[in-house]
Amino acid sequence: MTTMIRGGTVVNADRAFRADVLCFGDKVVAVGENLDAPANATIIDAHGQYVMPGGIDTHTHMQLPFMGTVTMDDFYTGTAAGLAGGTTTIMDFVIPDPKQSLLDAFHTWRGWARKAAGDYTFHVAVTWWDPSVHEEMGVLVREHGVNSFKHFMAYKNAIMADDETLVRSFRRALELGAIPTVHAENGELVYQLQQELLKKGIRGAEAHPLSRPPEVEAEAANRAIAIANVLGTPVYIVHVSCAESLEAIQRARARGQRVYGEALAGHLVIDDSVYRHPDPDFARGHVMSPPFRSSHHQQALWQGLQGGNLHTTATDHCTFCAEQKAAGKDDFTKIPNGCGGVEERMAVVWDAGVNTGLLTPSEFVRVTSTNAAQIFNMYPRKGVVAVGADADIVVWDPAGTRTISAATQHSKGGFNVFEGRTVRGVPTHTVAAGKLVFERGELRAESGAGRYIERPAFTATVA
Amino acid sequence: MTTMIRGGTVVNADRAFRADVLCFGDKVVAVGENLDAPANATIIDAHGQYVMPGGIDTHTHMQLPFMGTVTMDDFYTGTAAGLAGGTTTIMDFVIPDPKQSLLDAFHTWRGWARKAAGDYTFHVAVTWWDPSVHEEMGVLVREHGVNSFKHFMAYKNAIMADDETLVRSFRRALELGAIPTVHAENGELVYQLQQELLKKGIRGAEAHPLSRPPEVEAEAANRAIAIANVLGTPVYIVHVSCAESLEAIQRARARGQRVYGEALAGHLVIDDSVYRHPDPDFARGHVMSPPFRSSHHQQALWQGLQGGNLHTTATDHCTFCAEQKAAGKDDFTKIPNGCGGVEERMAVVWDAGVNTGLLTPSEFVRVTSTNAAQIFNMYPRKGVVAVGADADIVVWDPAGTRTISAATQHSKGGFNVFEGRTVRGVPTHTVAAGKLVFERGELRAESGAGRYIERPAFTATVA
Amino acid sequence: MTTMIRGGTVVNADRAFRADVLCFGDKVVAVGENLDAPANATIIDAHGQYVMPGGIDTHTHMQLPFMGTVTMDDFYTGTAAGLAGGTTTIMDFVIPDPKQSLLDAFHTWRGWARKAAGDYTFHVAVTWWDPSVHEEMGVLVREHGVNSFKHFMAYKNAIMADDETLVRSFRRALELGAIPTVHAENGELVYQLQQELLKKGIRGAEAHPLSRPPEVEAEAANRAIAIANVLGTPVYIVHVSCAESLEAIQRARARGQRVYGEALAGHLVIDDSVYRHPDPDFARGHVMSPPFRSSHHQQALWQGLQGGNLHTTATDHCTFCAEQKAAGKDDFTKIPNGCGGVEERMAVVWDAGVNTGLLTPSEFVRVTSTNAAQIFNMYPRKGVVAVGADADIVVWDPAGTRTISAATQHSKGGFNVFEGRTVRGVPTHTVAAGKLVFERGELRAESGAGRYIERPAFTATVA
Amino acid sequence: MTTMIRGGTVVNADRAFRADVLCFGDKVVAVGENLDAPANATIIDAHGQYVMPGGIDTHTHMQLPFMGTVTMDDFYTGTAAGLAGGTTTIMDFVIPDPKQSLLDAFHTWRGWARKAAGDYTFHVAVTWWDPSVHEEMGVLVREHGVNSFKHFMAYKNAIMADDETLVRSFRRALELGAIPTVHAENGELVYQLQQELLKKGIRGAEAHPLSRPPEVEAEAANRAIAIANVLGTPVYIVHVSCAESLEAIQRARARGQRVYGEALAGHLVIDDSVYRHPDPDFARGHVMSPPFRSSHHQQALWQGLQGGNLHTTATDHCTFCAEQKAAGKDDFTKIPNGCGGVEERMAVVWDAGVNTGLLTPSEFVRVTSTNAAQIFNMYPRKGVVAVGADADIVVWDPAGTRTISAATQHSKGGFNVFEGRTVRGVPTHTVAAGKLVFERGELRAESGAGRYIERPAFTATVA
Repeated sequence: MTTMIRGGTVVNADRAFRADVLCFGDKVVAVGENLDAPANATIIDAHGQYVMPGGIDTHTHMQLPFMGTVTMDDFYTGTAAGLAGGTTTIMDFVIPDPKQSLLDAFHTWRGWARKAAGDYTFHVAVTWWDPSVHEEMGVLVREHGVNSFKHFMAYKNAIMADDETLVRSFRRALELGAIPTVHAENGELVYQLQQELLKKGIRGAEAHPLSRPPEVEAEAANRAIAIANVLGTPVYIVHVSCAESLEAIQRARARGQRVYGEALAGHLVIDDSVYRHPDPDFARGHVMSPPFRSSHHQQALWQGLQGGNLHTTATDHCTFCAEQKAAGKDDFTKIPNGCGGVEERMAVVWDAGVNTGLLTPSEFVRVTSTNAAQIFNMYPRKGVVAVGADADIVVWDPAGTRTISAATQHSKGGFNVFEGRTVRGVPTHTVAAGKLVFERGELRAESGAGRYIERPAFTATVA
Repeated sequence: MTTMIRGGTVVNADRAFRADVLCFGDKVVAVGENLDAPANATIIDAHGQYVMPGGIDTHTHMQLPFMGTVTMDDFYTGTAAGLAGGTTTIMDFVIPDPKQSLLDAFHTWRGWARKAAGDYTFHVAVTWWDPSVHEEMGVLVREHGVNSFKHFMAYKNAIMADDETLVRSFRRALELGAIPTVHAENGELVYQLQQELLKKGIRGAEAHPLSRPPEVEAEAANRAIAIANVLGTPVYIVHVSCAESLEAIQRARARGQRVYGEALAGHLVIDDSVYRHPDPDFARGHVMSPPFRSSHHQQALWQGLQGGNLHTTATDHCTFCAEQKAAGKDDFTKIPNGCGGVEERMAVVWDAGVNTGLLTPSEFVRVTSTNAAQIFNMYPRKGVVAVGADADIVVWDPAGTRTISAATQHSKGGFNVFEGRTVRGVPTHTVAAGKLVFERGELRAESGAGRYIERPAFTATVA
Repeated sequence: MTTMIRGGTVVNADRAFRADVLCFGDKVVAVGENLDAPANATIIDAHGQYVMPGGIDTHTHMQLPFMGTVTMDDFYTGTAAGLAGGTTTIMDFVIPDPKQSLLDAFHTWRGWARKAAGDYTFHVAVTWWDPSVHEEMGVLVREHGVNSFKHFMAYKNAIMADDETLVRSFRRALELGAIPTVHAENGELVYQLQQELLKKGIRGAEAHPLSRPPEVEAEAANRAIAIANVLGTPVYIVHVSCAESLEAIQRARARGQRVYGEALAGHLVIDDSVYRHPDPDFARGHVMSPPFRSSHHQQALWQGLQGGNLHTTATDHCTFCAEQKAAGKDDFTKIPNGCGGVEERMAVVWDAGVNTGLLTPSEFVRVTSTNAAQIFNMYPRKGVVAVGADADIVVWDPAGTRTISAATQHSKGGFNVFEGRTVRGVPTHTVAAGKLVFERGELRAESGAGRYIERPAFTATVA
Repeated sequence: MTTMIRGGTVVNADRAFRADVLCFGDKVVAVGENLDAPANATIIDAHGQYVMPGGIDTHTHMQLPFMGTVTMDDFYTGTAAGLAGGTTTIMDFVIPDPKQSLLDAFHTWRGWARKAAGDYTFHVAVTWWDPSVHEEMGVLVREHGVNSFKHFMAYKNAIMADDETLVRSFRRALELGAIPTVHAENGELVYQLQQELLKKGIRGAEAHPLSRPPEVEAEAANRAIAIANVLGTPVYIVHVSCAESLEAIQRARARGQRVYGEALAGHLVIDDSVYRHPDPDFARGHVMSPPFRSSHHQQALWQGLQGGNLHTTATDHCTFCAEQKAAGKDDFTKIPNGCGGVEERMAVVWDAGVNTGLLTPSEFVRVTSTNAAQIFNMYPRKGVVAVGADADIVVWDPAGTRTISAATQHSKGGFNVFEGRTVRGVPTHTVAAGKLVFERGELRAESGAGRYIERPAFTATVA
């Protein structure tokens, strides 16, 4: 299949320039002005548009069994929704139960993911520790293209990793050339605050943010960073939602430590007033962890992206329908945690970030795609429009607008945290692995077209 | 007994002024210029000298069973050494074993302390948790004058408190009007670093600081502060030894949080080169936790005292002789942790702090006595030279000099971390509870003269 | 005159305690429980009330010729208003014109102040430099009890001090034992922003805060602190209004530098929405420099007071009536800068600070009186309820309420920035220099009763 | 001319990869594995070596008339020395005298530079202000390819820009799409400290750092950043030498402000003990501003480069011989300020940065070349090894060593601040504009071969 994207402005992380882009098979084969199109080429007219590397969502949960239920989006619907929004690669999570073999869990998730319409790859969670975990981390890195391991510092009595597990796993990751990532919330504090709120009779979704104040997140972020510092490993903090966590990252980076931070599209634009909404379905629909924060924190997160202390944008896409959410109608600790966004992230970040002048188009590419590809070692296969890269491209109309709604979304779950938000700047075409899978509103996602992306271990540069 | 201290400059935390001081019984009964001395009064000539509230050492361990042995100084020799140095009150620690009743341990320590020559009081450590601990904390506060509880975040597999214990105990302290204190070091990281160093064959005292880098301390300080912040309790960080811990305190105080920090005399003036000394006895003699740090950190600690981010000075006085220290000659993790200082603190802080212009005499009094009395609710009985206060007074000769040495110290153990240091500024007289117990080098300590000081719970000011 | 204040809770900066207070002449002569009252004593019943040192307002401008007019309050009405609010001492400013003799200006102000009803003292501004200024600073310190010099970094083309003047004056102050103070705003930036706003046709009071953003203040604060650091002088920053300035202070204090900061009652509770009020008289009535800020900054200022990075509270009392303010109706740069507050400060700070739990009563005393007395060397004559201190006392009813209004204020100008605010916690009695000058709403201020307070140069403590 | 660089590891800022590089004319025309070399191609064997974009030294002064003399290196010798060290482009400074036309000065410097052996471009200094400066800035940007303007905040009574000039020039630069740069030192403080030191009789080179302490630099950096913040311009701080300046940059970047910082090779590795050297020629040879600092600051600068708060490395190459330096033998303020380094920068940064593990090879390229090209709008012509880029390439042997010495340097002046330092990692070949100008120690620099590089104004990215 040959596709020519003609007349647009290619935007990479390092610069923007006028050029045509020619794709053949699943690769970009030419980038330049006034390219000749092969006779059979599909021509995409990109005049007046930006031509950017397809988005990478570093944080999704498709088909996740969680809190007694399973998310609405599976790997097909979730990746398809991503393609519709300009995201061509997702990074999902294998989450073994405590005592479960990492490899067994990995294979289970690989099976679930076969139906994916877009490319995917896996972080693998380390939720417990014994010598077999040490061993299987090695197998995953060496034989299965896994180079990142996730650690939950929250969810006490479930998948929470204690300090011993963190220390041992971080050290093992360093040995293997993999990067540890953490969900940073102090699970003990969350648990105690939850119990206290329930005792006081505060049981609705409004209690959710009260049980997870910024300090709870900042403490854990600081702890993970300290452990990484002592051990000499890099570390990646997922879904940084508040100024205080960001400051922990800033402090470490200012000392030269290799710490990376991820912001979620939702945290960048939604504030915590949603939890006090009179409609409990609406309030519960926004329950995720960390919770949405006051606007002060949103400003901080944008500053983090601008100043290079946050690196990636993601969604923590993890959709539940109202019925599922209602499991916690009398006890907020039982509301399945999670919200969507894989389809909206690119447009939301563009609208709130580029249109406002906070980010340049190149910086947009950096935080939606390039940095993710580099941090997780998929670059330059992913994250850049260049000869030899995967033909994962989004054509972006800066003048196009769209009003986001659950009514029109491709994602499942019947709820959208960005409901009613009109964004300016939308994808007109998405090319994934060389195929035109989204064209002016028409989605041509194909189950199974997505590939598992192996990510090799990091190694030193050698002359 | 009546004592008149005549002709000196009284230095309190708020100001310094010329005045005579008259003591009767165990109290100060008059402070003013040209006081008439009763006929029977002992007259102390303080011309050209400072008259200051007796020092309070907020952190000592007399007669402590620790790491398989017991410290050299008991409550008699330890408090006597304090009196010789101008320290009239020590704050020691009751440290129950895990599963031991707090009250049982408290009574054991009370028994040991009866021989004390100077006043003493106790922090009680919370080393484990169950409902009986909750209950006994209440008894200690209400019936035994305990208003501070200590938590060790280090010493894994021994007395380390996990996050659950910290959260529950901090909350209980708040309820009772007591203040939690913490030894801030991440015990898990220390343990892992120790194991790794031993594996690498680095087994001498030089390994000790490597197993406890500043980040290990700063992480724990930050965590304790975060927990206190979330729960709304004050918190006191013992033996802050490094810039990074201090920064955690500064950040919290800048946000208005009530966090207090303690610096040890040793950490203020001794650097970590001692651990690389060719004489292993010398190196082991300096093993304490946190360890001595590079000079950069000493400068930071002084700045903390100047800027009000550190509040007290103490010693962690905990003496072992060379034979005891030699238990770790082949494995640094077995060296009993502890050094002396109760006798030298006042002179060392004066010499390095006041003579250099870093602190004024009033600031010296604040950080050696007044702040301790206020933070731990002994003020104005202790911490000030004023009518109605305990007659605990040190007369200080700013021109006097002394060269510190184990050969001349009153403390046991045969070792002195300040060996050979010549200080300018020394006590000429110490009055404790109205008695002249130290006079120009002659110590008149009396076993059993020390009193247990009850410290009531904190309550709100009411009109 | 003898006055007994009976049955109250005395609150000093270091502690609160039940005691009667006996005043004779202009001094406190006894503080203790169950004092006997002399037969002729006036008895004030303070049961259920706090007995505190009279407030010190470190920053007022009475009878100030400024921007082509003169403030409404003179030294009589201004100090009388202070007494009604519990403030017994004001610190006003002598502001020489460029090229004017400091001594001439000082004597002019001394003449104006003779009618004062409450005690007063003067900071003297250094608005220009030549050898005569150097000389007259010495005369003021040695012969006239001036120990603080003010520098305006704003007001270009008027009284702005350039860096050369700052450096020379700070150094001279150090030599003399006086403390430099600064109004920190970068006058050049203010001027340029003003010109630009006028050019754009933004001419109303809404332009005022736009011409003086926080960065303009923070830059100047940082510069003054840097100069003080290099020269080794202390420095006091007047009217710190924003988080960024406060951070400059925090950074310096954390390094051990002796920097002090002042917060205005208005900045602590009023936000910048006042400038967008539809009534231009209302908006102009709030024009002062630095301007009111968004609520984020108010929170920061409270944290500064709590954490010890801000030390005093003041008002910058400088009242103009609506007609005077209207001079700038077509050009915001011509609105006379200034607002009132000397009468309301104590109640506003109590209500917003103590009632909310941000400050304890002792901390309230510290930031409304004691710190001011100590920083400007009036302690212990002022700033404490103790034997020997001036009998400047406010009896405070924590349950009393008052609704602030221009209609009922004693200050002139017909405007009140706290209009309509109901405060809980009010003075019932004010004793100044031993006289009962305010009693349950009745003000007995007497012109000329106020004394000029000499403040000696700072000297080192000597034994 | 055709050159094939074969078998090396190409290192760009975004990644490193095995590839051959083919240059034709002055451009790179192919980058790939196993390229065919044209018959006539010069072949450079790069096996076991890195192939990197030629260095860009963002800060040099060739043939500068300064402090009554002229630097030893002219544009020929200076650029030739650069080529020998792997630096293919220098950014020099046009420095008009106050009142001199910017255009006149620009043309004078253009004339001097014609003899350059390597590419060069100019920052133009704004040392004074009137409407003609405003006008000529426009001409320089629009007609002469200047997009950066330099401001000296030091050098009172000479070229120091006051705040008015800074504000007006920054604003003008913004309007034109140019970036302001600053030499950040508070000139008034420097002047006063110099006078005081001279008065005290401290007249040798040891006085130099005492007259320019870190606070003096940090104040100015903070001020420039504040002005840029208020006006909304980016700003670039040249020769950041101390932790405190760096912190000002960090704070701004953490808020999202576009601030860039430059570190000098000398500041990264040389400490201030040089000024206390017994040989006055040696001490004077190190006099430059800002001065060398204590090792604490060097660590901070490296952390700045690692964490992305510093962006470029330069030298401030400005050579004077011992006779010239001796002009200040009796008065340190008369020592011509300046040191060399254009030849050594790349090797010094590699040795101290890459060999130690502080920087990866890609990060080395970023801070020695790519960031400079991007910040000053020469990218991707400069700063990257890619098709279409200028054939400015250095082939780097990581195993090669060299001992730096004035005896073997190409630069003039007979002095080298890196004297005796043995570096591992050296250039074996330098290709400039497609020509092999340095080959294993042999320099083939050609006068006049260097080109003036026009740098267009910054414009927004448009689709």
